[in-house]
Amino acid sequence: MSSIAELGEFGLIKRFSNDIKIINSSTVKGIGDDAAVLDYKDKQIIVTTDILAEGIHFDLAYTPLKHLGYKAVVVNLSDVYAMNAIPKQITVTIAISNRFTLEAVDELYKGIKLACETYEVDIVGGDTSSSYTGLIISITAIGEAEKNKIVYRNGAKPNDLICVSGDLGGAYAGLKILQREQEVFKANPDVQPELKGYDYILERQLKPEARADVIRMFDEMNILPTSMIDISDGLSSEILHISEESKCGSRLYDEKIPLADETKKFAEETLIVPTTFAMNGGEDYELLFTVSQDDFDKVKNNPLISIIGHITEQSKGNFLIMSDGSEVELKAQGWSHNK
Amino acid sequence: MSSIAELGEFGLIKRFSNDIKIINSSTVKGIGDDAAVLDYKDKQIIVTTDILAEGIHFDLAYTPLKHLGYKAVVVNLSDVYAMNAIPKQITVTIAISNRFTLEAVDELYKGIKLACETYEVDIVGGDTSSSYTGLIISITAIGEAEKNKIVYRNGAKPNDLICVSGDLGGAYAGLKILQREQEVFKANPDVQPELKGYDYILERQLKPEARADVIRMFDEMNILPTSMIDISDGLSSEILHISEESKCGSRLYDEKIPLADETKKFAEETLIVPTTFAMNGGEDYELLFTVSQDDFDKVKNNPLISIIGHITEQSKGNFLIMSDGSEVELKAQGWSHNK
Repeated sequence: MSSIAELGEFGLIKRFSNDIKIINSSTVKGIGDDAAVLDYKDKQIIVTTDILAEGIHFDLAYTPLKHLGYKAVVVNLSDVYAMNAIPKQITVTIAISNRFTLEAVDELYKGIKLACETYEVDIVGGDTSSSYTGLIISITAIGEAEKNKIVYRNGAKPNDLICVSGDLGGAYAGLKILQREQEVFKANPDVQPELKGYDYILERQLKPEARADVIRMFDEMNILPTSMIDISDGLSSEILHISEESKCGSRLYDEKIPLADETKKFAEETLIVPTTFAMNGGEDYELLFTVSQDDFDKVKNNPLISIIGHITEQSKGNFLIMSDGSEVELKAQGWSHNK
Repeated sequence: MSSIAELGEFGLIKRFSNDIKIINSSTVKGIGDDAAVLDYKDKQIIVTTDILAEGIHFDLAYTPLKHLGYKAVVVNLSDVYAMNAIPKQITVTIAISNRFTLEAVDELYKGIKLACETYEVDIVGGDTSSSYTGLIISITAIGEAEKNKIVYRNGAKPNDLICVSGDLGGAYAGLKILQREQEVFKANPDVQPELKGYDYILERQLKPEARADVIRMFDEMNILPTSMIDISDGLSSEILHISEESKCGSRLYDEKIPLADETKKFAEETLIVPTTFAMNGGEDYELLFTVSQDDFDKVKNNPLISIIGHITEQSKGNFLIMSDGSEVELKAQGWSHNK
């Protein structure tokens, strides 16, 4: 095993950047000068940045480094898609302690590069530093959109339909499984982890995808959401962001919230109300958005999305409607039963 | 004193972003959505990112947090200026351990914001995370330039004049003073540090500036350098970058290298050849650039810049010419006498 200390920071940067191929025409100059040069012509530019810190956002006890690299890119791309924009470039900053081997860093980079290939994004810059402690990855993603196609959080109007892509709560359920099995392992290292039957939700946690396909579908079907956000925290806190920014209220229907079979199965097994994972979990990286009623025909029976509620006047607040008709008020940072 | 743990990550982000005012027309949307939106119209986009890690790039024993925040911004802006471009936006990512008080974080933010005001740059995004250990700041700077005004490292031609702004070696000399006084303090905490008479080089280390004024002067005097880089490492390694990228050689003249009086004084005091600080030091954030001989009249006697040498054919290598006529070959990561 080789050590990072031997290679040094400059060596690390070189090792990381020597096989990078540029694929986007907007990338005029990538790594290799004081800065990258991009040309977006008449498009507007979308910029977002996210940090993942060891011990806070991930636990290396159950996170393969390649998956971590992949996820670090995806969470940033998801923010670009949530503007109805297309990511084109990223810069990657890594602080890493000498306890990591070079082989470990290579795995991390492999994941970063795989995500870039998958989403057709160029790595145009970055910086690598030693750290006296854990691993920290900070990525900035840059993308493009036509000015009149950008979707903000603040455009929802009363009677708009609230929609979500994919299914929710899986990533959080996956995390709970990983944590449970780690506890079992700590208690008795000879016990094999029981992960069978949970492949889908484990992948939701360890190797999430960003919904590029949904953004493409919007373009093809000529759908322009009135507001949009990606679900990095729970559905509850994300719909509250849209309501607050759009100065409106919302009604979500419990039975409409899409859940994967594995999420439901794990909820049953752990005696948790399944929707809890969706409302209070996080890291699903699905898109939560609103569309005008005029677009109903385009979103109903659409295999990529579910209609889960509608926007109301602000004075009506934000509620989850249960199947028995009772209403649960949505609160920031989670939800609480009040009826 | 208040703790960061009480406020939490979301609170920190809010505290940091609530008084940010947008000043650039290219900033369409700053903090507050999934991503920022920028509009550069027909300009090209410059992107660069740099990380500062505690214990690696700074020592809090002698770095005031406000200065650190200021410097973290400046080092990134310097990379944008080094493309002959104007920085317009930054994103700021901070990982910080709970051992820091809220007041300490405020100081850091104050420095970041002061730099943004000074250089007229908008903070358009960022992320804040706890860290189990030290403080890490990662900043991405975004700027604009007209396509045909961007200056890369690779355009130097034989006979071009090699120029540098300001003076060199001061930041490194300042660092050496701070380290010396810290050793004295460790040995005897009652001894007052001897920093008098070194205000200028201490400031070069603790609160460097980026050369926005030089880039403005280029524009006003219609100077378009053939190549440019900012001096974050020593002059030796920076001129080698230009030579390598431009496929040429270089001759620098020892007696032409600009040094501040304080740098010379400290060199004398410590029995070090003064140019060593310039050649092998770093963090000066001055601009090293080449211009065509046709521009000689514009750069001679220019108060902002010194002509320190000229570009040669690649086969002639890279040398520093001493006042006695002897030649010192420049090597990557430093220099060594070979004659």
